[in-house]
Amino acid sequence: MTLAERVLDGDVRAAARLMRDIDDRFKSAVEELKTLYPHTGNAYILGITGPPGAGKSTLVDQIVAAFREKQLRVGVVAIDPTSPFTGGAILGDRIRMNRHADDPGVFIRSLATRGCLGGMSRSTMDVVNVMDAMGMDVVIVETVGVGQDEVDIVSTAHTTAVIMVPGLGDDIQAIKAGILEIGDVFVVNKADRDGADRTARELSAMLEMKHPEPGAWLPRVLQTEGCRGVGIAELMEEFEAHRKYLKASGALQHLIEERNAKLFSDTLREELFDTVFGAIKENGRYQEILDGLRDRSTDPYTAVEEVLAARAFP
Amino acid sequence: MTLAERVLDGDVRAAARLMRDIDDRFKSAVEELKTLYPHTGNAYILGITGPPGAGKSTLVDQIVAAFREKQLRVGVVAIDPTSPFTGGAILGDRIRMNRHADDPGVFIRSLATRGCLGGMSRSTMDVVNVMDAMGMDVVIVETVGVGQDEVDIVSTAHTTAVIMVPGLGDDIQAIKAGILEIGDVFVVNKADRDGADRTARELSAMLEMKHPEPGAWLPRVLQTEGCRGVGIAELMEEFEAHRKYLKASGALQHLIEERNAKLFSDTLREELFDTVFGAIKENGRYQEILDGLRDRSTDPYTAVEEVLAARAFP
Repeated sequence: MTLAERVLDGDVRAAARLMRDIDDRFKSAVEELKTLYPHTGNAYILGITGPPGAGKSTLVDQIVAAFREKQLRVGVVAIDPTSPFTGGAILGDRIRMNRHADDPGVFIRSLATRGCLGGMSRSTMDVVNVMDAMGMDVVIVETVGVGQDEVDIVSTAHTTAVIMVPGLGDDIQAIKAGILEIGDVFVVNKADRDGADRTARELSAMLEMKHPEPGAWLPRVLQTEGCRGVGIAELMEEFEAHRKYLKASGALQHLIEERNAKLFSDTLREELFDTVFGAIKENGRYQEILDGLRDRSTDPYTAVEEVLAARAFP
Repeated sequence: MTLAERVLDGDVRAAARLMRDIDDRFKSAVEELKTLYPHTGNAYILGITGPPGAGKSTLVDQIVAAFREKQLRVGVVAIDPTSPFTGGAILGDRIRMNRHADDPGVFIRSLATRGCLGGMSRSTMDVVNVMDAMGMDVVIVETVGVGQDEVDIVSTAHTTAVIMVPGLGDDIQAIKAGILEIGDVFVVNKADRDGADRTARELSAMLEMKHPEPGAWLPRVLQTEGCRGVGIAELMEEFEAHRKYLKASGALQHLIEERNAKLFSDTLREELFDTVFGAIKENGRYQEILDGLRDRSTDPYTAVEEVLAARAFP
């Protein structure tokens, strides 16, 4: 049996192996993903993002538990920014969601970013597809929402929850502006801290300025205390309400199609570049270009045009 | 006279116009950039990055003034993360470096990010090249260092200064780990605040763990108060020391070549994708692929392989 067949059979170890192969960019992984693709499109994809220290992992832990109570199988993909200094994933040494470690209905996978946006976004979609194909009802994608790359990654989720904390101060408002657009639900976590009500009010006020079209989803601001489980039930109800809205409005089908189109174009961008760059490295053209750039007998733009025109690739 | 010829003549308005054309992705801009390329490679490129609220703009203002005192011409490229909500650049409404507005030796340009990493990195390099070709002695690239994209952008600078502030707390340490590697100089700004010494000590301790090779540059941690100009003279000395180190060690030449190679490969990635994606949209192949993805008669990976094999592009 191929890895993909074993994944479709629900073999957790085969899924873990395939995800490692995806991470390592094995060519064989692409063949397995082809087999899995017709079996995807069923999982509900939930994106969780927010700044470092917002308590996302604790909150995800509570959300996983709540889905498990409903007998739903849950996959979690946690995107860890890699430190180029230590070589390790930043969250890697934390003990993540320990209480779900022995639950066969929960599958947790950390992906370390390697400073490659396009690649990261694609790897995440591939891993979500594996979890989807292996029958997970819900797949949660957790990212540290500090840059455009993370925003990009959660943009392929069906429902995106943006997690904030009180008292991050005005300095962090700049980040907020960038993620206001992507949230379907906003959560002020650590709501027992001073300033939670104020942060929630400010967020609500910013959201009200958006002037949504009639019939559009209106994101709400909820308050939670991840550590004590406060507000989780209401948050789950909001997720369910958003999922129902997506289904009823036809937006879910649109999101699924957009996600597949993005997976295609991300893959195309990457494969095209890898193919052509590999070819000009192989046939010596790249070295000629580097020499030309050094002595200024060519320039980067002309060199690109020449590569495109010469079809100096297989 | 072409725009490029006017830029080489030092025409500030022509340079501003060309930068707008680069921002708008005008094809004509590429022709101008070709003309300018042989005249680049002379400016000293200084990258300034750090989290929102670290006081980067104020510090850059002081650094510009210090370079001006030495009669050096200074270009500043400020990368503004765009809010997809307002459509505006986040820093756009701030009054930036007002006191240099009438100084012909200072050229300031804001670039709004549009959620496209490869494109942003390339646009920044293009704009730096325009400033370089027009005779700026120093070009400062200022980014909000919150994500991989910004790290990527400052990685093409000759000297990179990472700006921190005291008291951002342990939560922000995760970000620090990612930028430890890219800093040639570390600055604890707002050094009059509580905890400045502690933050500086912690940074120094983390840097000492790096075990650099013999003869390698050892990044130092400086303290400044941007608002009052405290520590700026020492910071300028450190920039000068690093520049001398780069020249003496041959690393500067290497950095210049790496930067040109990156401009080539970024341009290649973008042009390849634009060309092929444009072609399959034009000839109807893309719509067929979307239909196939929807009814699951194809998958994204097979579709990419077929596009590559069919050379369904001009």
